[in-house]
Amino acid sequence: MSNIREVARIAGVSVATVSRALSHPEKVSEASRKRVQDAIDQVDYRPNMLARNFRSARSYSLVVLVPDIANPFFAQVIRSIELRAQKKGYSVLLGDTQDSNAREQEYIRLVETRLADGVIQLRPMSDQFHNASKFKFPYLHLCATESSPGPCIRVDNVTAFKHMTEYLISLGHRRIGLITGLKGNPHTVDRFKGYKQALENAGIPFDEALIAEGEYVIWSGVNAANQLCRLKERPTAIACMNDEMAIGAIQALKSNGLQVPEDVSVTGFDDIDYARYCDPPLTTIAQPSDDMGTIAVDMLLRLIEGETLSEEEHVLPYDFILRKSTATVKVAVPEY
Amino acid sequence: MSNIREVARIAGVSVATVSRALSHPEKVSEASRKRVQDAIDQVDYRPNMLARNFRSARSYSLVVLVPDIANPFFAQVIRSIELRAQKKGYSVLLGDTQDSNAREQEYIRLVETRLADGVIQLRPMSDQFHNASKFKFPYLHLCATESSPGPCIRVDNVTAFKHMTEYLISLGHRRIGLITGLKGNPHTVDRFKGYKQALENAGIPFDEALIAEGEYVIWSGVNAANQLCRLKERPTAIACMNDEMAIGAIQALKSNGLQVPEDVSVTGFDDIDYARYCDPPLTTIAQPSDDMGTIAVDMLLRLIEGETLSEEEHVLPYDFILRKSTATVKVAVPEY
Repeated sequence: MSNIREVARIAGVSVATVSRALSHPEKVSEASRKRVQDAIDQVDYRPNMLARNFRSARSYSLVVLVPDIANPFFAQVIRSIELRAQKKGYSVLLGDTQDSNAREQEYIRLVETRLADGVIQLRPMSDQFHNASKFKFPYLHLCATESSPGPCIRVDNVTAFKHMTEYLISLGHRRIGLITGLKGNPHTVDRFKGYKQALENAGIPFDEALIAEGEYVIWSGVNAANQLCRLKERPTAIACMNDEMAIGAIQALKSNGLQVPEDVSVTGFDDIDYARYCDPPLTTIAQPSDDMGTIAVDMLLRLIEGETLSEEEHVLPYDFILRKSTATVKVAVPEY
Repeated sequence: MSNIREVARIAGVSVATVSRALSHPEKVSEASRKRVQDAIDQVDYRPNMLARNFRSARSYSLVVLVPDIANPFFAQVIRSIELRAQKKGYSVLLGDTQDSNAREQEYIRLVETRLADGVIQLRPMSDQFHNASKFKFPYLHLCATESSPGPCIRVDNVTAFKHMTEYLISLGHRRIGLITGLKGNPHTVDRFKGYKQALENAGIPFDEALIAEGEYVIWSGVNAANQLCRLKERPTAIACMNDEMAIGAIQALKSNGLQVPEDVSVTGFDDIDYARYCDPPLTTIAQPSDDMGTIAVDMLLRLIEGETLSEEEHVLPYDFILRKSTATVKVAVPEY
């Protein structure tokens, strides 16, 4: 294996320029960079970048903390984070916390010990990040909620869920079931608020019996929908706090001999890839996962550079996606 | 911020023991480790692990190269890799290659420059890994195929797809459509082989018209199934090379006014979470994603430690999962 002097000699530049081209390519002219790269390829030079990182006290990697990478919405967001990070010369360390504080702590230690330069937190209900002001490293919340502390990027979950519930009300539904995530989850709290606001505005009394708790995964939507099906007075619509539970709910309703949307309307949240392919295709709220990832990386890199952010909170627009899983309530169809 | 001497003093151990407890916890007794940890917490010591990495010339991170993290099967595999890696003191760098050689090259450079210690390659059709013997760093192929070079972990794709095709033949199907992935993809090559072997063994002539090319994503399954529906003599069954294309195919068949499985049987491959929740639930081949991730990490760490592996190829068992998307062919139902 060759050394940096040989690269410099062949490229016809100084050793310092080779070093700079490797660690801060943006500070070197394109012509020099090209000469250095050609020389590196020619002599098969493999610099030990651990030395650079040690010298610069920077690791050029970001930690992404996610409650479950197998959740397709989070997978989409991570894909966009990773695309942007690579473009910016950073790699992404994946921290799948499985909703465990202990696992999260291990990843926080990576940043505290300089093995990562900052954290993008996708897990909304972390005790540690609730007191995030104590952290001395750059971090931000992505897919955040109203209660997220510190810098964050989110959609307005309250308004989005209110919008969806109002749409169901506009179709004549008054008994609207709700499949929630775990009660303590901040996403659940925000979306619940939107549901209640919509009912209240329409003068529909809140009925605890219509609420079934899930866990943001498919099987929990199946169980919750079965629970709602056992009610004496069944809901005519079910609003679900994510698409996966809605997909489970649709399957459960069908197994109970009910048609969607003829007997029961069902709605989701997130607009994962499957939402348009389930039967019937799902009416849902789309979160801008691509923009979320891009903005998060850019914002975190500014924090890493020591900038103070004027705007600590980015609220991005959501989209209301109308598909075929919702219909006017049967009994309330007006006659013309 | 405190320093390592203070930690050693409070823990009542030597500085060398603190250092060892941090970089090689397995070499320190549990009692000492506990004392060191308590002291670290007490004085809020944050060691600069970049220095350790520089000294040991090791980064304690693994690169996982994946063609698309938003593919739910790969997401499951990555979850299991990450779980095992964290247990072993390694973090996972995510390299979503988007099937681009240039993006892959950037991640390979991480290993070549010591920013990662090894590579788990989930992308089956990489030009660079085709000549992987030239690589001087530890790597292995996961979800590999018959043609994967070097150490690899896989199911027997040929036999699994043959098994599925034979099952369809046993139901009386003779016009069996095939929705493939991209033709050059090694998974496509292996599974195609299995399809052909099953037909040949049953004396069913191969018919090019029954083959439709997809790209292992849902929408491509929709297009491919539409193509098969336009055939004068429609297939009575469609074997798909993954679950996502099968889910797309089912939707397309329904839009063409056909019932699954009454008019057309459909099968998948992978057994992603959605497979059991689509309508009808999908008959498919399950790959052991949890075992695959665990074995891959263990195998890669042995390569990183400089071991030579006696068994370069791990072929894991698949499961045949019978659900409701397959039925006996209509015209061939025997009368009793």
